[in-house]
Amino acid sequence: MLDKYNIRTDLALEEKERFESDEVEIHGVILEEEYDEEREIRITRVKIETEKGAKTMGKPVGTYLTLEAPNMALPDEGYHREISEKISLFLQELLGDIKTKGELSVLVVGLGNRQVTPDALGPYVADNLCITRHIVKEYGKYAMGMEHANLISAIVPGVMGQTGMETVEIIQGIVQETKPDVVIAVDALAARNTRRLNRTIQISDAGIHPGSGVGNHRKGLTKETLNVPVIGIGVPTVVDAATIVNDTMENLISALESSEVLKSVGEVLRSYNAAEKYELVKELISPHLNGMFVTPKDIDEMVKQISYTISEGLNLFFSNSQNESVEG
Amino acid sequence: MLDKYNIRTDLALEEKERFESDEVEIHGVILEEEYDEEREIRITRVKIETEKGAKTMGKPVGTYLTLEAPNMALPDEGYHREISEKISLFLQELLGDIKTKGELSVLVVGLGNRQVTPDALGPYVADNLCITRHIVKEYGKYAMGMEHANLISAIVPGVMGQTGMETVEIIQGIVQETKPDVVIAVDALAARNTRRLNRTIQISDAGIHPGSGVGNHRKGLTKETLNVPVIGIGVPTVVDAATIVNDTMENLISALESSEVLKSVGEVLRSYNAAEKYELVKELISPHLNGMFVTPKDIDEMVKQISYTISEGLNLFFSNSQNESVEG
Amino acid sequence: MLDKYNIRTDLALEEKERFESDEVEIHGVILEEEYDEEREIRITRVKIETEKGAKTMGKPVGTYLTLEAPNMALPDEGYHREISEKISLFLQELLGDIKTKGELSVLVVGLGNRQVTPDALGPYVADNLCITRHIVKEYGKYAMGMEHANLISAIVPGVMGQTGMETVEIIQGIVQETKPDVVIAVDALAARNTRRLNRTIQISDAGIHPGSGVGNHRKGLTKETLNVPVIGIGVPTVVDAATIVNDTMENLISALESSEVLKSVGEVLRSYNAAEKYELVKELISPHLNGMFVTPKDIDEMVKQISYTISEGLNLFFSNSQNESVEG
Amino acid sequence: MLDKYNIRTDLALEEKERFESDEVEIHGVILEEEYDEEREIRITRVKIETEKGAKTMGKPVGTYLTLEAPNMALPDEGYHREISEKISLFLQELLGDIKTKGELSVLVVGLGNRQVTPDALGPYVADNLCITRHIVKEYGKYAMGMEHANLISAIVPGVMGQTGMETVEIIQGIVQETKPDVVIAVDALAARNTRRLNRTIQISDAGIHPGSGVGNHRKGLTKETLNVPVIGIGVPTVVDAATIVNDTMENLISALESSEVLKSVGEVLRSYNAAEKYELVKELISPHLNGMFVTPKDIDEMVKQISYTISEGLNLFFSNSQNESVEG
Repeated sequence: MLDKYNIRTDLALEEKERFESDEVEIHGVILEEEYDEEREIRITRVKIETEKGAKTMGKPVGTYLTLEAPNMALPDEGYHREISEKISLFLQELLGDIKTKGELSVLVVGLGNRQVTPDALGPYVADNLCITRHIVKEYGKYAMGMEHANLISAIVPGVMGQTGMETVEIIQGIVQETKPDVVIAVDALAARNTRRLNRTIQISDAGIHPGSGVGNHRKGLTKETLNVPVIGIGVPTVVDAATIVNDTMENLISALESSEVLKSVGEVLRSYNAAEKYELVKELISPHLNGMFVTPKDIDEMVKQISYTISEGLNLFFSNSQNESVEG
Repeated sequence: MLDKYNIRTDLALEEKERFESDEVEIHGVILEEEYDEEREIRITRVKIETEKGAKTMGKPVGTYLTLEAPNMALPDEGYHREISEKISLFLQELLGDIKTKGELSVLVVGLGNRQVTPDALGPYVADNLCITRHIVKEYGKYAMGMEHANLISAIVPGVMGQTGMETVEIIQGIVQETKPDVVIAVDALAARNTRRLNRTIQISDAGIHPGSGVGNHRKGLTKETLNVPVIGIGVPTVVDAATIVNDTMENLISALESSEVLKSVGEVLRSYNAAEKYELVKELISPHLNGMFVTPKDIDEMVKQISYTISEGLNLFFSNSQNESVEG
Repeated sequence: MLDKYNIRTDLALEEKERFESDEVEIHGVILEEEYDEEREIRITRVKIETEKGAKTMGKPVGTYLTLEAPNMALPDEGYHREISEKISLFLQELLGDIKTKGELSVLVVGLGNRQVTPDALGPYVADNLCITRHIVKEYGKYAMGMEHANLISAIVPGVMGQTGMETVEIIQGIVQETKPDVVIAVDALAARNTRRLNRTIQISDAGIHPGSGVGNHRKGLTKETLNVPVIGIGVPTVVDAATIVNDTMENLISALESSEVLKSVGEVLRSYNAAEKYELVKELISPHLNGMFVTPKDIDEMVKQISYTISEGLNLFFSNSQNESVEG
Repeated sequence: MLDKYNIRTDLALEEKERFESDEVEIHGVILEEEYDEEREIRITRVKIETEKGAKTMGKPVGTYLTLEAPNMALPDEGYHREISEKISLFLQELLGDIKTKGELSVLVVGLGNRQVTPDALGPYVADNLCITRHIVKEYGKYAMGMEHANLISAIVPGVMGQTGMETVEIIQGIVQETKPDVVIAVDALAARNTRRLNRTIQISDAGIHPGSGVGNHRKGLTKETLNVPVIGIGVPTVVDAATIVNDTMENLISALESSEVLKSVGEVLRSYNAAEKYELVKELISPHLNGMFVTPKDIDEMVKQISYTISEGLNLFFSNSQNESVEG
């Protein structure tokens, strides 16, 4: 009923869940799940295979790999190496074809605003990468001590309020100039549910899309806009304030409908149709909530922890794909 | 009705408003308002004069000066000099007695977590102060080119998760060692209403109190705990996520009660008492909202702007009170 | 004599001084000086007009405006407004022709490494600019409340060790995509003399050149590489460690030559030629000094202060040139 | 001869080296060396046992453990775990007696200025510690899942220009209030030689002393000033600019004395006494070098890397000493 409020989620997983409650199978969308009990990691693959599926899901065609681990944001002796390894495997899965060409030239884009803590994920990931492009360019790949040396570059473009430019303008320019084989864009996302925050990583070959995250990167970074494959890596760090309010109202109405104490209210409500209920709540979402987000108080530690784990996943992938190339 | 949810506000102004709707005068609490139309600055003085008033208000005895200016967080050619000047006057009003002693020794405490944007207000204010204590101590007040030179010192203690210590433990130690005449503690606050965010400054001689702001500085910085007068300066930068949800439910119930479309629901609801309504909503506030806050997306620019205006207000007060001393 | 050590300065002013000691006039180079006694600001114009002059000076053809003010890095009530105004006038002087076209589209590039204090000048300047391009693009120039609204954009590209890319690659791409009328690049520079640090601003229409500053931005940002006029704004914040050592040796040798006490040493030294002296010192410059720089301990406050003054100079120029356009 | 220039080093190791050239054994000072060839770690123990030794060395009585590893500042897959382990063992060696008491209450002090890169070592180390005091205080040691839980707290006091207070005033107050068993103070140091920078860690039970590091923490943090044992951990990240100049002059004079080409100069110089030579150079050290330091251009990466290794060494010591306590 409340779809009209345009509830926002950047997670394909959450889009899928919307429909699951209706126990409907969506044409053109495939869902696979696996659970690593020992490491408490749940993997979900949402493959949107047709334009129809894309339309139903409100997300472009592509593969969306989601990794959920409840302890991801907590401190860990081994820096969540097991998660970094999964990220590396995911990248291998999505970039299998490109990787075979020997050296891989990658531009990592750290999206978001370093000055706003829950939006700093992308910049922090860029901070911890092993950057090699300039070294290989200057001294040759043998300087890296291997036959195949990936050329890793990175940019933290800043947000539109800081640059006056669309992120896609900046990245298009850099891609045309430096010609990477693939762009990996890392961004903080908005989830639909606070339970998902800082424990989920989504990796997708569909790029990074409009309206994502804390900021408002309006035009997507995709194969269409950049002319090279674009992998999007996202972690939900915020929920839109309006979403939380919306959920509350849904919960309240559903509670009224089923309430023992207030069952007469429930009976009345049940007799109304969606349009009538919509009228009921549409006035209640304060316009002051526009541009507001919800995030945990210890978001600084969480973003620090997760960004480090993602950096290590990328570094691992870059390093592994070199070794394989050498062997292959 | 929903008081039981312990709706949190650090603003005396908002506490007062709770009662205004009932058009009740609170014993022991005086409210004065003035409005500077030209500069669009509204000043509210809440004086809690008795323990009974304190209990009703849920805030300690003291004077709470509140300055509201809708454009406070927006960029301004003159850096909102008019607000800095008001802050200086407020400090003079609250510290009138102490100031007459000639040199004033002040410790400014920048509370909050520099790493979490809406909680960085206190540290940012400390960053821009004109610190003089060490210079006066080493070279004498004449080095400052004046007969009466204030001794200004500052500390950014960090939050408990970073230090393992209560803020009050740290500040008690420093106060005992350096013996300032007054402590001025600056902190980000939690408001009850998103409309209040980043446009309100509260200055009070009641110190800074438990449960304030984004972090959880649990024991207050007050005259009782520090043995010197404590001025608290606070700006609401967040609203508790639970507060927003709570408000939504209040709004929804009140809409149901008055709805034309759903008037039969309203009739039923009107017949229930507070306890019954409370039962209705108590299950709905997600425990996942604990420790979550709501804040605007451009909080980085807002905190930067306002912290600068407050620093300048403090610098102005420190500088003015010296000059006056000289003349006097 | 010690030219062979390739003493590094990014200041045209200092290049000129090298020759002054010899009281030689350099063909193709014009020097003008003015001194504003009241404000203690010294302005020097070095115009390199011919390729021959450029070769002698080791700097490209162009106009180099240098502003020296001993108190530039000190705190100031008015934030050194008088210096900001001079910067605005300098920009008007160098960009006079371009400005007449009505709206001006400018890309400001904040060069340097935010994580290394003396190299953070460029990024800090970018932080405090009034960015308008995205607003004018989205809402039109009338949204800015004026007939002619400049389109100001900015980028902080990072240094090669962080990005793996030459700065010029990044900026070329962005310039091609966003097509500004002019690029203004701000960078920390290396001076030859510690006396010059943090009290000198050089503004030039010759762009920013190889080997500048703390980092090593190897290919210049110039009209040749970017295809639009490039204004370089630089402040010397470091001196190469090898330069200081070199100077010391020069001083020592010259002291020996003139020493009363050691005049016999002096006599001997005077009888040797440059090659012999060169042999004397060439072994003494430790290779460990490569990649080392000299900078003041309070560089954080200095960079903060000066970057703010430059931002305000740019904001003033952008704002003034709009007003003029309206009137014109 | 040039001792009069008060060449500054915070490393006991370097003080010792001054005398080695004279092949003199210093009474009251014991020197032990070991070398771990495989890991390329050199350990030096300087024990100053008598006041006479202390006077000769210009350092207080105490044990100074120095760890040198040429690759310490380079990136490393294992984050230089081998060095963290040595640090943990050093702390055990110096704190053996205190540790036996069961729970250990430690206050770590991150000295230095977070805003000046080579001085940010102390604050960065504090950022990565596992802070537990507030948890044990609130929930008891069993909350930590062990019988003996150390109480770890930390403070980043800032430097005098930011606080207006001597660091020792701040720490004295906090120590009196929170009563730790031991203070561990971490600071950036000044070395005498650029070769030593960012590859040496000194750990000492003599505390941290006046004039150390980049800033000027004038009164030491020692057992005398704080009334609890104080361990100082320091890494040289800068060399005083005057030191480098001084060294150059020494080198030049010694080159002159031994020069084949300029042997007649050498002969003359050899005939002069120290006072005459002193007169020769005293004018040459520019007063502009006061307050200047020399540091590498990639100091940001170095400080990040080393601070992380030290944090892990501390975390390891805190965690190990708990486990041992349980067993004991």
